[in-house]
Amino acid sequence: MTQDNSYPSEDAVKFATFGPKIDAYNKDAVDQMQAFDPEFYKKCTAAIPSAEVLDSDPVDATKFWNLLSSEEQNIVGNLTIADLTQKQLSGELTALQITEAYIKAAIVAQLATNCVMQFLIPEALQRARELDQYLKDTQKLVGPLHGVVVSLKEHMNYKNKMTTASYVAYMDNFPENEAVSITILNKLGAVFHTRTAQPQGIMHLDTWNNITGRTRNPLSTRLSPGGSSGGESAIVAMHGSVVGHGSDIGGSVRAPAAFTNLFGLRPTTRRLSLMNGLSSGKGQESIVAVQGPLARSIDELDSYMKAYINEGKPWLYDPMCVPIEWRKEQLPAKIKIGVLYDDNLVTPFPAVSRGVRETVAKLSKCPDIEIVELNPTWYSEKEMFDIYTANLKLYTCDGNKVQLSMWAPSGEPLLPLTKHYMKFGGGEELSVCGNKELNGMRDALRVEMLQKYFSDLDFILSPTYNGPAEIPGQSLYWGYTSFWNLLDYPNVVFPAGVYHDVEKDAVVPELKNNAYEKMVWCDDKGGIKYNAESYVGGPVALQLTGKRYCDEDVVAATKKIVSILGIERR
Amino acid sequence: MTQDNSYPSEDAVKFATFGPKIDAYNKDAVDQMQAFDPEFYKKCTAAIPSAEVLDSDPVDATKFWNLLSSEEQNIVGNLTIADLTQKQLSGELTALQITEAYIKAAIVAQLATNCVMQFLIPEALQRARELDQYLKDTQKLVGPLHGVVVSLKEHMNYKNKMTTASYVAYMDNFPENEAVSITILNKLGAVFHTRTAQPQGIMHLDTWNNITGRTRNPLSTRLSPGGSSGGESAIVAMHGSVVGHGSDIGGSVRAPAAFTNLFGLRPTTRRLSLMNGLSSGKGQESIVAVQGPLARSIDELDSYMKAYINEGKPWLYDPMCVPIEWRKEQLPAKIKIGVLYDDNLVTPFPAVSRGVRETVAKLSKCPDIEIVELNPTWYSEKEMFDIYTANLKLYTCDGNKVQLSMWAPSGEPLLPLTKHYMKFGGGEELSVCGNKELNGMRDALRVEMLQKYFSDLDFILSPTYNGPAEIPGQSLYWGYTSFWNLLDYPNVVFPAGVYHDVEKDAVVPELKNNAYEKMVWCDDKGGIKYNAESYVGGPVALQLTGKRYCDEDVVAATKKIVSILGIERR
Repeated sequence: MTQDNSYPSEDAVKFATFGPKIDAYNKDAVDQMQAFDPEFYKKCTAAIPSAEVLDSDPVDATKFWNLLSSEEQNIVGNLTIADLTQKQLSGELTALQITEAYIKAAIVAQLATNCVMQFLIPEALQRARELDQYLKDTQKLVGPLHGVVVSLKEHMNYKNKMTTASYVAYMDNFPENEAVSITILNKLGAVFHTRTAQPQGIMHLDTWNNITGRTRNPLSTRLSPGGSSGGESAIVAMHGSVVGHGSDIGGSVRAPAAFTNLFGLRPTTRRLSLMNGLSSGKGQESIVAVQGPLARSIDELDSYMKAYINEGKPWLYDPMCVPIEWRKEQLPAKIKIGVLYDDNLVTPFPAVSRGVRETVAKLSKCPDIEIVELNPTWYSEKEMFDIYTANLKLYTCDGNKVQLSMWAPSGEPLLPLTKHYMKFGGGEELSVCGNKELNGMRDALRVEMLQKYFSDLDFILSPTYNGPAEIPGQSLYWGYTSFWNLLDYPNVVFPAGVYHDVEKDAVVPELKNNAYEKMVWCDDKGGIKYNAESYVGGPVALQLTGKRYCDEDVVAATKKIVSILGIERR
Repeated sequence: MTQDNSYPSEDAVKFATFGPKIDAYNKDAVDQMQAFDPEFYKKCTAAIPSAEVLDSDPVDATKFWNLLSSEEQNIVGNLTIADLTQKQLSGELTALQITEAYIKAAIVAQLATNCVMQFLIPEALQRARELDQYLKDTQKLVGPLHGVVVSLKEHMNYKNKMTTASYVAYMDNFPENEAVSITILNKLGAVFHTRTAQPQGIMHLDTWNNITGRTRNPLSTRLSPGGSSGGESAIVAMHGSVVGHGSDIGGSVRAPAAFTNLFGLRPTTRRLSLMNGLSSGKGQESIVAVQGPLARSIDELDSYMKAYINEGKPWLYDPMCVPIEWRKEQLPAKIKIGVLYDDNLVTPFPAVSRGVRETVAKLSKCPDIEIVELNPTWYSEKEMFDIYTANLKLYTCDGNKVQLSMWAPSGEPLLPLTKHYMKFGGGEELSVCGNKELNGMRDALRVEMLQKYFSDLDFILSPTYNGPAEIPGQSLYWGYTSFWNLLDYPNVVFPAGVYHDVEKDAVVPELKNNAYEKMVWCDDKGGIKYNAESYVGGPVALQLTGKRYCDEDVVAATKKIVSILGIERR
């Protein structure tokens, strides 16, 4: 990094030469929306405010659902995966009707939140017609996701379609192969209508890149939808797809799900395939990324995982996948949940602390649930500081070399959260020995977690993030999610049914004195930067964690919890 | 490395100070053998030739089985795991009788092959008595390995027992925890009477260290028993234990099994636990080590794995283990086997090529087996050169720093095969970027293997090693086994029923021109060093490889193959 805080990969002149490509790429999205239904598009652009308004006001974009007809709203709003497939079987709905309704909802989502990078409208319509024909000819569904509209995080290779992972330099990349997950979802009958946005480097808990710009939060458009799967969270929360297929290496499924009040699963590594995608992570094994779904109900996460794994059998395509069936859950009659109010490193914002308290108060009344307070026996502030510091070093263990090599050919400017990320490990490449040492520490933690906590507990309940949905550019602390990537224990994020409240959540609690706490709560001069006014409309979601490979049980326990909390399908 | 070919960690003066510790350690083994049965020990030392004779002559040490009574010979020679447990249930045998017979056989094994590092005779006898009492009290076996005598590769932590992994500097290391595998085998009812030898650094396909010296091959004592689990292969081949529990990161279960005519399994990673062991590998993930058993029959490998995994459930103790049951095999009616006569990089010695030819000739006659010749479509010499070179670099990716740090405190001299190993990657530490790149290449190979070969084939049959059992210090080329560690596909090694023949195997074939080929076949001046006379008594074993996590099927197919070949229990 040079003294003016710019990196040698940045080159404004070079970047300017990519302008026409970027414009053409974005124009294609507009053209597809218009071509699908010019009248509808016109109606939408008239109704939905300008980007400037959406970026500065806390607009609840879900009110634009009324741009759809009531039939369309019913399809995209009320029907679960099970409903959709059953209604096709019974002849009440066609895949084409479903697809068209979801394309309309995706257009509304795009105009309100800027969540889509690439539309696949002609492909989706053709696919829907083929599915309808197949059903007509055979009286059978192609698979358990027949006619179910799934949005795809863009960095998954799509055969012969430009795949950039938001790296401007990759605007000539048209993969010959496709992501194994796409192959599998295809086999199961899914319809793909959109490929959604991810942030620069795929390494923000936010979504902002130099090709399509910033993605907004549907619940409050001036807030962040989270990231890096923020295109997915925005489109699913806008009812623009049934399931969003995202990925997570530090919170990238969970933060978006939390910020938009959805359900998100970060499975244990190697259960879903990562094969054939674009990222800087190739060959990095210290913290292994996963793909994972975002959906509007926990039941749909469950049925999606079951379909993907048991029918999709990813291990037949990807030798890195473990051949473990999505099994029936094995919950004890009474489940024992350890609750972590605070990770002992960064104090959550008041809305989150309140969310945990209110949730625990409700769960404690349930005779089938035993609550144990974990903070007294949890890792100390010093221990957590060291763990998180090691965690960050592992993310940037190559000194950002691969990332920089992917940005350099375009000279694209590095965004603030990109620069934040690049300083995680001090910007220096670890030695192989240093890397091994940190891996050894990580493995010891994994064992300790099993022996010290999960020998007694069934699950751990904790915040998903230190705040409710975050201000754009301010998702600085990954610890609540990245801790579990480091340990590779699976989690589900679910809405707590609690929203930030300007009055209730105004008081700043007593703070700790470490650098990460200050980064989150304070400005450069040490003053408190937290401002309750900024978080209007932001929901609070919690994270439930279980034992490695017991993803099914985490999902099943979440079903139980949301049923107690009375959390409905979004 | 300094110019005289010595490393800075070597220090003869410092090493001399460890002499008394080493002597005391070895004296303990002698004391335990004598204390167990002074008369028997005397009889053995009188009958078994001196180390000098055993090291220079091709002595078939199995003839010393006659030092045991015929009852004892029957117990250790003829009874499988199933027989042993059943005869205890029926009251025909006690765990104590079994244990005593195996202790005697282990003493003979030790005196002939120097395979044991540490005896556990008092512990084994006490354990046997407890098992007998339990059976008497409950009419039940403790588990599927009740009274089954298992030898343990020494680098597995044994609670409160000196654990060195053959590092002289670790002669003060008395672990507080024990290897998870020991916990599991204990739970299953196994008896431990010995901890066996591994080479310096646990990184030779041979067994020689500075604490207990060199281990010999029971079938021809001047040959190597293979390594690094050579203590296990020697003791099992001498009928000194039922199963040997070894480990493998480059061939360390398979070369020993091959050199001593046993069955050995290198499972897919993370099926057996590696937790709580001593090695230099902590945190190294590019090539992941596995534990695996050596046994005298394929049926016993099968039942051992089934017991360990399905009853032992290693994932309850070790979060790195995958919770995949040892399932019933799923073999097609006709199995399709690709045969690799030569890896296209290092031409095997004549006995091995003959072994493959004779095996294929027999299998080809079986209507249930289809043979496909793989060499025409296999990786080219250039490709294999690059793959093997990358493979070697990954073994020493930290520039040997951890190894050297473990040798330095004792100043122990580095043995020839240790120095050979240390030069694998040129002795230089990779950068994290360089490491990631090689990992990426490895992952691409894993996928290609699935898509290009295992999409059509069920299994691949190949040599286990370039020669029959090797001359000590000459196991230079790991490629036939290490290729599969790099790719992490599981294999079983089985005896081909073929032995090196001085006359049949005298002719040197046409050779390739690459450096690895020359290292194996030629001396420093480029002359042929291969001498058929050197390999008298050396058996040939082949390696069967299957898809990742399909270990059960590889075992099942091996059952079929050895039944066709008429290979009996050893």
